Amino acid sequence: MTRPGAGMAADIAEQPAGYDRLLSAEHAGAIARVAAVIAERRPRHVVFTARGTSDHAALYAAYLTEIRLGLPAGLASPSTITLFGARPDLSDALVVGVSQSGGSPDLAEVLRVARASGALTLAVTNNPDSPLVHTAELSVDIAAGHERAVAATKTYTAELLALLMLIEGVRAGDGVLPAAERDALARLPELAERTLSDATPAQLAPRYRFATQFVTTGRGYAYPTAREAALKLMETSYLPALAFSGADLLHGPLAMTDPDVPVLAVIGSGPGGESMREVLPRLGERRADVVVVGSADVEATRMAVPEVDERYAPLLDVLPLQRLALALALARGEDPDAPRGLKKVTTTM
Amino acid sequence: MTRPGAGMAADIAEQPAGYDRLLSAEHAGAIARVAAVIAERRPRHVVFTARGTSDHAALYAAYLTEIRLGLPAGLASPSTITLFGARPDLSDALVVGVSQSGGSPDLAEVLRVARASGALTLAVTNNPDSPLVHTAELSVDIAAGHERAVAATKTYTAELLALLMLIEGVRAGDGVLPAAERDALARLPELAERTLSDATPAQLAPRYRFATQFVTTGRGYAYPTAREAALKLMETSYLPALAFSGADLLHGPLAMTDPDVPVLAVIGSGPGGESMREVLPRLGERRADVVVVGSADVEATRMAVPEVDERYAPLLDVLPLQRLALALALARGEDPDAPRGLKKVTTTM
Repeated sequence: MTRPGAGMAADIAEQPAGYDRLLSAEHAGAIARVAAVIAERRPRHVVFTARGTSDHAALYAAYLTEIRLGLPAGLASPSTITLFGARPDLSDALVVGVSQSGGSPDLAEVLRVARASGALTLAVTNNPDSPLVHTAELSVDIAAGHERAVAATKTYTAELLALLMLIEGVRAGDGVLPAAERDALARLPELAERTLSDATPAQLAPRYRFATQFVTTGRGYAYPTAREAALKLMETSYLPALAFSGADLLHGPLAMTDPDVPVLAVIGSGPGGESMREVLPRLGERRADVVVVGSADVEATRMAVPEVDERYAPLLDVLPLQRLALALALARGEDPDAPRGLKKVTTTM
Repeated sequence: MTRPGAGMAADIAEQPAGYDRLLSAEHAGAIARVAAVIAERRPRHVVFTARGTSDHAALYAAYLTEIRLGLPAGLASPSTITLFGARPDLSDALVVGVSQSGGSPDLAEVLRVARASGALTLAVTNNPDSPLVHTAELSVDIAAGHERAVAATKTYTAELLALLMLIEGVRAGDGVLPAAERDALARLPELAERTLSDATPAQLAPRYRFATQFVTTGRGYAYPTAREAALKLMETSYLPALAFSGADLLHGPLAMTDPDVPVLAVIGSGPGGESMREVLPRLGERRADVVVVGSADVEATRMAVPEVDERYAPLLDVLPLQRLALALALARGEDPDAPRGLKKVTTTM
């Protein structure tokens, strides 16, 4: 009988080592070879398909694809293909399935249909011997090792980093990252370690002991982080947690916020973080309870994260949010390693 | 001084007449001419951009595009273009901005960039003299008339119907709908009237008087309806309302549901509705409080809706949900015509 949350705590703590492993010559080389094939095949647009936590990694990758590669990117809903028999012509596309288990039959079916229509297909998983990998033409192993908790943490950030390395490799053309990019990435394990050593998340958890809901928000690269934080809170503390892009929040859901609604705002440096500065005063008008996560130096209770280019921030910003979700679940008497009603692999079609 | 909710009630009641108007020779002809241009230009994929309620209409249109036209479709995040300066090559794409006001500067900027890169651009709005219309090469007027309430209802369903007519027109090639399609659409105003005459939504509202949250769910064509229902509840009753595709619900958020969490499940006929039948028993195991909306004949408290092809169901299923949101807001002492903290047009970039 292990301590509740021991598995999730161990998974979270392993993330710096996971970054190190992916950046090693072995894994970086494997990703570079896949990137070179993609660059050579020159897809005209990129379609990602994923569910749950992996969907947030896919969203991050879609932003990177549009911003760094200048290629249109979108997230496909598997149901149009698996339920309604849609057969979109994907012959110009790179279709990427992202899944820690690689075991979701609906994602494998999307890749099978895409490959049959002439798409270049890629599986990004934590299991090189999974159905998704066997279906796709190309595959990337995120090499995160066995995840103990049902709530995904280290596989999420390994997906982020693998997709980042892959897309920057495609941008380089031959898959090999430029020296400046390699240097910036090489700093991430130590920065992640430093982020995880901050005691603030555990100190903040009691503040939310009797919260009945959360709102999370962020823009640009920070929006997937907001989505993932909301999902972690829902999976481990069973609280409704709504994630909004800062822009969408102003459209309607802002009406929901009041002093009883805790808001977690992911705000880094760069254009995404800058654009959130118009959101904070609007939340202030509604007297919402705001805690800021990220490197932005704003007047607020903060879970500070070292400053990096906004593009890398999702690899750090999510860490204190994972730790907050863990600490809050424990404070509420839950075991985040074994959430009620949740299985590791789901088998929807 | 008008009665609280009088505006939203009037907007909701006008929807059958709105369907009639869009189906009239004048508007159907205008949509057919736009559809014929799109069919002739043969885009290779379709990108939608929208926010808030219009984003749910865009999601419906993306499903239709994949299933009925066999073209890959996705929803663009404006921020990659407006904040991060992404310049994706959209020369193969049809880029569609959906906005009731046509006044969001970020959507106009996406269409401007798309048009400059060679994309075919289309504005779908309720304002033919709006910035979005002036930016796009093509435009469709949803002709819903002035919307009284801040929370969008009749402009949402008018967007759905206009996009449906447009996409079926593209499928036909010359923009002119086949007779069977015209006949099916011609029945919608009367079916909408019948749906609106059902007293169940007002009767159900007291059940939720002290609810602290909602979960909504649906799959395929019903998923945009679940998303829109959640937004309406948030905008008018300020309750956190989480929308999940039935498949995503099983991935993690299912752990959140318990007897204190009301679930609204949109379940029609056809493959999307069928696939929800595996979700209901899982919700039953968690003893969630489930009310079913739609035509599916399942054992549950229901807001019944006349049976139509699943493709048309979003035009009917959302009606009782709008009425439920209105009745619940009034029961909670709120004025849904003027939600706190909410403006009709937001101006984020």
